[in-house]
Amino acid sequence: MQPYELTATEASTLIAAKKLSCEELARSTLDRIEEREPIVRAWSYFDRAQVLRNARELDKTPPASLLHGLTFGVKDVIETADMPTQQNSPLYFKHQTGQDAVCVAVARYSGALIVGKTDTMEFASGGRVAATRNPNNLAHSPGGSSSGSGAAVADKQVQLAFGTQTGGSHIRPAAYNGIYGIKPTHGAISREGAKNYSHTCDTVGWYGRSVDDLQLVAGAFRLLDADEVKPVQLKGLRVGLCRSAHWALADPYARAALMEAGRRLEAAGAIVTDLTLPESFTRLDDARHVLIRGEGRAAFLSEYLGPKRHLLDKHFLDIIHNSTKITPAKMVAAYDLAAECRRAFDGLFGPALDVILTPSSPGEAPEGTSDTGDSIFNATWTLLHVPCVGIPVGMSPKFLPVGIQLVGPRFTDSQLLAIAHACAPVIHENAALTKFEETETAIV
Amino acid sequence: MQPYELTATEASTLIAAKKLSCEELARSTLDRIEEREPIVRAWSYFDRAQVLRNARELDKTPPASLLHGLTFGVKDVIETADMPTQQNSPLYFKHQTGQDAVCVAVARYSGALIVGKTDTMEFASGGRVAATRNPNNLAHSPGGSSSGSGAAVADKQVQLAFGTQTGGSHIRPAAYNGIYGIKPTHGAISREGAKNYSHTCDTVGWYGRSVDDLQLVAGAFRLLDADEVKPVQLKGLRVGLCRSAHWALADPYARAALMEAGRRLEAAGAIVTDLTLPESFTRLDDARHVLIRGEGRAAFLSEYLGPKRHLLDKHFLDIIHNSTKITPAKMVAAYDLAAECRRAFDGLFGPALDVILTPSSPGEAPEGTSDTGDSIFNATWTLLHVPCVGIPVGMSPKFLPVGIQLVGPRFTDSQLLAIAHACAPVIHENAALTKFEETETAIV
Repeated sequence: MQPYELTATEASTLIAAKKLSCEELARSTLDRIEEREPIVRAWSYFDRAQVLRNARELDKTPPASLLHGLTFGVKDVIETADMPTQQNSPLYFKHQTGQDAVCVAVARYSGALIVGKTDTMEFASGGRVAATRNPNNLAHSPGGSSSGSGAAVADKQVQLAFGTQTGGSHIRPAAYNGIYGIKPTHGAISREGAKNYSHTCDTVGWYGRSVDDLQLVAGAFRLLDADEVKPVQLKGLRVGLCRSAHWALADPYARAALMEAGRRLEAAGAIVTDLTLPESFTRLDDARHVLIRGEGRAAFLSEYLGPKRHLLDKHFLDIIHNSTKITPAKMVAAYDLAAECRRAFDGLFGPALDVILTPSSPGEAPEGTSDTGDSIFNATWTLLHVPCVGIPVGMSPKFLPVGIQLVGPRFTDSQLLAIAHACAPVIHENAALTKFEETETAIV
Repeated sequence: MQPYELTATEASTLIAAKKLSCEELARSTLDRIEEREPIVRAWSYFDRAQVLRNARELDKTPPASLLHGLTFGVKDVIETADMPTQQNSPLYFKHQTGQDAVCVAVARYSGALIVGKTDTMEFASGGRVAATRNPNNLAHSPGGSSSGSGAAVADKQVQLAFGTQTGGSHIRPAAYNGIYGIKPTHGAISREGAKNYSHTCDTVGWYGRSVDDLQLVAGAFRLLDADEVKPVQLKGLRVGLCRSAHWALADPYARAALMEAGRRLEAAGAIVTDLTLPESFTRLDDARHVLIRGEGRAAFLSEYLGPKRHLLDKHFLDIIHNSTKITPAKMVAAYDLAAECRRAFDGLFGPALDVILTPSSPGEAPEGTSDTGDSIFNATWTLLHVPCVGIPVGMSPKFLPVGIQLVGPRFTDSQLLAIAHACAPVIHENAALTKFEETETAIV
């Protein structure tokens, strides 16, 4: 086994025991990246010499945390002090601010090795798509907008990576690439230094190759509920299986993955019951559209007014020109609906419900790279501000991963990770060997 | 009259008519700054040669907007491409990212002349205070955290300036310095590139020396309600006079200013009635405290983990160490209360109410520079996300300005400015000559 193949948690243990040096891990990682980059195209920037230099520095430094020496990719809409942040936009060609985004600084000060910048959709919004391919099946998309981060973690080019989600940009690529990901509670992680699109929806998250990996990173961020985590037992765990109002849009594999996950959890002793969200929640998709367009209009105004406006994709001109006719009244109604649903969502949890199990994408990744998939199974949770953990379940006949996500109430990120830790071994058992056919597995 | 004495609107007219060049205005401005800076200490950075160079460039460029050539100060927590952003923190000594915050870029692309960076409280939060003095009475504070921006505009060192408000950091200095200011609807102006503290409360605003000046800047930001503004007549305007639950904390001058403004509006034909906010609103101050501490914990984590932690004021260590014991449950309750009150607030407006008239500070500015005043008359409106326009009313016996603010519902910023435009000449009539004594003027 090569060092690059280790999960973050495995490597962390070896580095702490001095059985693996940061430089060894870095060299193996860089070799892997250089071998795979021409095929997968996950990266918009990396500098071998710089990474090795930083790894050697880390080998001379006492570990600051369990992240010491672990390899981290950073979505290219998130600022890095020592690398450009190009946002997949010619307006930001070679743009470098010399300042880390807060999330990058937290990882770096915790000892993580920042390996490079991963390709993204233009401003993590729309317009230009990443050049990245799905490492599971190169003819398909890795999803977006966190395209490169998802593909790089899945392809074992890096152990951990930051992504962002404004609709489904983080959890959907987790599903398409067959990896783990967390979109934390909105605001639990600072977004300073990540390109703004919609301040109500923008959320920084991270990918790993196990729930343990996600928890390692969560530890560095000192989440507010970290001290309150209760032990989780699958036996008696109350799981709400939520097909969502968009079930008709789920392909056979997404359906099979959700039902298979429910069946497995039930077999392990969980109490799985169907959950239908209140009627008002069906209006959240429209509300999110209103907010991202209305808030995006303020976010992209400076690029629009600048001398390089002609280099912006039409997507952004439409936002500034208010092509979907967002009004103050629509904005206010959208904010208020979201707030009302957030409170109602919390009310679902309690004696009858510990966690929600729901699709993380409409199914397998789309063919080609221009269509990065639909956020229809993510947007509601994003606007609700609730934490989501993506877990792989199985593979479609084209060898494309399909997954599910677990969802909990706001500011229970550490608890949700503990639940995911208990559920993942059951849900994900033999994921690479679990092949779904075009039939829907029935749930008892 | 020297060019520096012109309001933004007056200068804009002269520049458009080619009766004043950008360079002439810049020279006059710089002379004024150099004369006054040793006394008022409003600036953390300005570079005469750079400003003159940019002014000469503007003179060669066709005007992009009515802001062409107007002089703009920028609070030093807001990034500027060509000047350092030092945040009144030794961690950011000479720190320069090479990128403009969105608000700065919008002003710059609209032709504004960015003159320099204004002093602030540490990270616009707490800890170190600005060195700035109140230009009306140097023995007193200009307020904070937008200390330098408020003082510079009041002292005619600059025509316009950006500030930020998370509690009362923008409107309170407007009152203390005797100038006009707008804190727009939360999210109407992008905060990207302004230091994050509380994403729920942080708001970028601007100062001017007239309502026209504020409107000039609003035009550049293309506010969502700009096309919907209805003409405003004082006769019949329904004004809710809101003493607020904190009236007992208002000094005699704040009380007199509010009552005098109400009396004058009434004399001009407005229908002024007492307004008491619903009982639940009294809990917003506590909710805001919970949110700024909880969100601040994520915002300042990177500074805390970095190698210069020892240079942070204890204020920030307390936030990271969660000294006020913020819990997830408190955060959620605070978000939900704020959302509930926002909706209830909108419900107050309609046939019976056009605008709220309320104190903008507890009264005259505190003595010295270490106490920048209390945000008790601002925090509610900040958390409600509603637009506020500060208007000067008169002077205390110590020749310290006192003001009021007008408040409207979310996303009615342009309409609120139109109301302020109608009200200000009445409210502000002879403000410099209106001397309040230690008695409360009764309202009919």
